[in-house]
Amino acid sequence: MAELEEAASRVIRSGCYLHGPETKAFEKELAAQCGARFAIGVSNGLDALRLIIRGYMELGLLLKGDGVMVAGNTYIATLLPVTEFGLSPIIIDPDPDTMNFDWEQGLDVVRQLKEAGWKGRVKAVIVTHLYGTPSWNLEIARKFHEQDIFIFEDNAQAIGALAAEPGLHGTRMTGNLADAAAFSFYPTKNIGALGDAGAVVTDDRQLADTVRALANYGSTERYYNRYAGYNCRLDELQAAMLRIKLRHLDAETERRNAVADAYAAGIKNGLVTLPKKFADMRQVWHQYVIRVPEALRDPLRDYLAKAGIATDVHYPTPPVYQPCYEKYFDMPDDDPSLKFANSCISLPIANVTPEQAAEVARVINEFKG
Amino acid sequence: MAELEEAASRVIRSGCYLHGPETKAFEKELAAQCGARFAIGVSNGLDALRLIIRGYMELGLLLKGDGVMVAGNTYIATLLPVTEFGLSPIIIDPDPDTMNFDWEQGLDVVRQLKEAGWKGRVKAVIVTHLYGTPSWNLEIARKFHEQDIFIFEDNAQAIGALAAEPGLHGTRMTGNLADAAAFSFYPTKNIGALGDAGAVVTDDRQLADTVRALANYGSTERYYNRYAGYNCRLDELQAAMLRIKLRHLDAETERRNAVADAYAAGIKNGLVTLPKKFADMRQVWHQYVIRVPEALRDPLRDYLAKAGIATDVHYPTPPVYQPCYEKYFDMPDDDPSLKFANSCISLPIANVTPEQAAEVARVINEFKG
Repeated sequence: MAELEEAASRVIRSGCYLHGPETKAFEKELAAQCGARFAIGVSNGLDALRLIIRGYMELGLLLKGDGVMVAGNTYIATLLPVTEFGLSPIIIDPDPDTMNFDWEQGLDVVRQLKEAGWKGRVKAVIVTHLYGTPSWNLEIARKFHEQDIFIFEDNAQAIGALAAEPGLHGTRMTGNLADAAAFSFYPTKNIGALGDAGAVVTDDRQLADTVRALANYGSTERYYNRYAGYNCRLDELQAAMLRIKLRHLDAETERRNAVADAYAAGIKNGLVTLPKKFADMRQVWHQYVIRVPEALRDPLRDYLAKAGIATDVHYPTPPVYQPCYEKYFDMPDDDPSLKFANSCISLPIANVTPEQAAEVARVINEFKG
Repeated sequence: MAELEEAASRVIRSGCYLHGPETKAFEKELAAQCGARFAIGVSNGLDALRLIIRGYMELGLLLKGDGVMVAGNTYIATLLPVTEFGLSPIIIDPDPDTMNFDWEQGLDVVRQLKEAGWKGRVKAVIVTHLYGTPSWNLEIARKFHEQDIFIFEDNAQAIGALAAEPGLHGTRMTGNLADAAAFSFYPTKNIGALGDAGAVVTDDRQLADTVRALANYGSTERYYNRYAGYNCRLDELQAAMLRIKLRHLDAETERRNAVADAYAAGIKNGLVTLPKKFADMRQVWHQYVIRVPEALRDPLRDYLAKAGIATDVHYPTPPVYQPCYEKYFDMPDDDPSLKFANSCISLPIANVTPEQAAEVARVINEFKG
């Protein structure tokens, strides 16, 4: 806290509140953390994804109507920019192991659409590393690239995570596995700003330049609007906060892993399915999401609440079922994303110790359904 | 500064960074300052205008293709949301007295379009109180309303200003003259945040509710997305800063008026046209913009720069001539907005005393062209 207060005071006294040294330093430090060439601080994670998509559209590489694959199990922010810019969302089921984008199914859908003579073209995929578990398949990623399909990462929940295999640039770090990644620093994130903040990370200089301009009214220089842009700037105060938080990322990841390990070791209740821990990845456990049979989800939450244990659900309604998308999607009755949404519970992880997690596990074990 | 630092520390220690007590209090205080029913803190002034327009579109009161009148002499942020949402911008000349929206011409254009059998409908006007000078005409405003034409205020530069006549709600305060107003608190504004910030002010409860939801992913409650929205939230840190700044608004307005008076009293150079001071308004002089013949604009700026006086131009290129709008507008050769852009100079006003302004005036008086 003292460190954050001191940094805030420093920025307040500096008189420079936007596009200053804190933002520049944070961008450099974040790029280094991901092993990427460019990082652009922006207003929030949704805007980061909006700017990536608008950026590739301005570069002529994405066109209205192009198909974009998105996992059905994600936060709505992954889907919003796809529909905002008139792209065609193609919903892919979650992989039962990661609950993220099913790469095999994605590849298959591309093939099927071609065979069915779909007049559009699948042009991008947005993979979400939901809950802090990397979603990556190098072999299929290469096949997507061979078919000119961009791969964007929604890295809102996975800063610091390592995929099992290297990405297209050699590093295993999420946020630099493919073409461009959106980061969110919402306050509850593993690295949280003291307000909204986000970033775009990419190795693509053209995209980086375009995103930077689009986030500043479309200006490539002062009062020269090359693009009809937005105002999506990261401010100096938040950049200063984030620089401090970034230095504590490894400690935060370790703490979350210790809590996750305590849950995994402690929960022994046949009704509960634990999230999979992958030996070959570094997961960062933004959420620790267990599953129970649908009929027991709310009873277990109520039971835990009575024991003073606050839980949450990420997310109660998959994006495609939100009222704003009514009549937009035609989903099957046995949609696995919907089933998952009805059976998942997020256990406390942000502010608990491994000892507290062990106690939560003990309480869960006494739940009979 | 000490006051700002103390407030920042208070927010940092509170652990509440969004949708908290500072934002609520600021919204209440801003609404009270404008005599309005609702104020919604948002991310910046452009987003405020985007949210007003998207809001009325969600309410079914504005439709794609509808005509929206905008003054040719303004910052590009006034125009961007019109084109972003597929509305049809209709550019109106600046009034030579205020350099703002020419209300008579606006009324005339509506009549002409009807007579010419235009199939579209003019559905809104965005008036900018540019430089801190109110743009208002009650009689014509009523005529617009009789024809179901919304009136939005771009109040980015005029917080605290009073129009010569009352608005549609009785008050003369800009930001509450008509249907809805967008405020910007960019750091250099008369009330500047320590980063980007903005607000929507309105007496329309339906619009207020819609804007609040749209700014928060379209959620009317947690994880219930009624609209396909955005993330345009004001954070607690900036709200706390703005609450302090708002208390100093009257002093800042007085200071700017004293500087403007010093310029008006001191500048006696036949080459220079001063901005008009209106006895029946309260102008807030966000900029003090003089005019000289086009050929003398850059020479006068160079001359002043050599005397150590930094000037600026607001704005060197009217929005419709920006590269992003190439092929979008067909403007006449004698466009008064373009002429104005080529002949205007903004004199120092943000950080000068009346005594310094008198000295700048003395230097200007020695300029022979």
